[in-house]
Amino acid sequence: MPHSPHPTSTPGAAADALRRLTRVVPDFPQPGIVFEDLTPVLADPDAFAQVVADITAFCRSFDADLIGGLDARGFLLGSAVALELGLGILAIRKGGKLPPPVHRVEYDLEYGSAALEIPASGIPLEGKRIILVDDVLATGGTLRASRELLERAGAGVVALAVVLEVQGLGGREHFADLPLYVAGSGGAEEQ
Amino acid sequence: MPHSPHPTSTPGAAADALRRLTRVVPDFPQPGIVFEDLTPVLADPDAFAQVVADITAFCRSFDADLIGGLDARGFLLGSAVALELGLGILAIRKGGKLPPPVHRVEYDLEYGSAALEIPASGIPLEGKRIILVDDVLATGGTLRASRELLERAGAGVVALAVVLEVQGLGGREHFADLPLYVAGSGGAEEQ
Repeated sequence: MPHSPHPTSTPGAAADALRRLTRVVPDFPQPGIVFEDLTPVLADPDAFAQVVADITAFCRSFDADLIGGLDARGFLLGSAVALELGLGILAIRKGGKLPPPVHRVEYDLEYGSAALEIPASGIPLEGKRIILVDDVLATGGTLRASRELLERAGAGVVALAVVLEVQGLGGREHFADLPLYVAGSGGAEEQ
Repeated sequence: MPHSPHPTSTPGAAADALRRLTRVVPDFPQPGIVFEDLTPVLADPDAFAQVVADITAFCRSFDADLIGGLDARGFLLGSAVALELGLGILAIRKGGKLPPPVHRVEYDLEYGSAALEIPASGIPLEGKRIILVDDVLATGGTLRASRELLERAGAGVVALAVVLEVQGLGGREHFADLPLYVAGSGGAEEQ
């Protein structure tokens, strides 16, 4: 059932929707890990709109030029947030997806390594103020690499917004200098 | 520079923006292929808003329940379109990304095979009317597999919307029974 789009942020509504709709699956992708699948949240019109409204409300105070969405689940939120703010969405891609020339950053994972890329032509990034949007903050490795990538392109990250935070992995410690919003926490987590 | 969000669709504006901003790179990912990179289009606030407005205008006539976005670039459009329509966005994921249970379809690529998945719990799909959104229609293999996946879950695909169509690969022939919109063509391509 379609509802009227562009709701305003209602305190606690996003957190309630996340508690109700997140698919919590133990032992995926490996034993001991509890996977929080947001797919049903995003597929629910009211929950999706509420999460987007929350993140959008947080983003408004930073005078940002661009939203940076992280491949792939960050795209599912960043796109709608960018539209609500009247901004563009910069897709921060996994390595190998984009044609040359690219800016590229490689970073370590628990096992092996990964890379992120953005185009090195066609997008004016010098001096731009960018807010990074992703679904989950865990170790923060991909968000840190994204920030490094954007800084290499001459832009600056002015804030971070995610839907969920996995506690105990130290992710947020890497961003002590940045405002960080966690929609699932039910409130702003500015530092 | 942020503009006022939620523009209405202006005939030809999306096609103009696509011609101006698409990064056309020959011989990627392999010799003989011309890659059309939409990243700069989506990062430009006006072009992004115009493409989203065009696709949204097309989608309004189908009384859809849900937007299906294809992993990963379809997420960059489907999310904003879904929000504009007051719908949820169903992420149609590449195989192996989602925890069980899932619906899964495997399909052939030129070399090897691939799989798409959606959750098999937590999202009511029976009888739902879904519009698939992706960036490019080429051979149509991924869109066909997405349709099969949704039908297996009890839903129906009622229309398709993409930004660009690669001519000469026969993609649209697989969807002769469905309305198909190509934003880059500058007009509706309903059949």
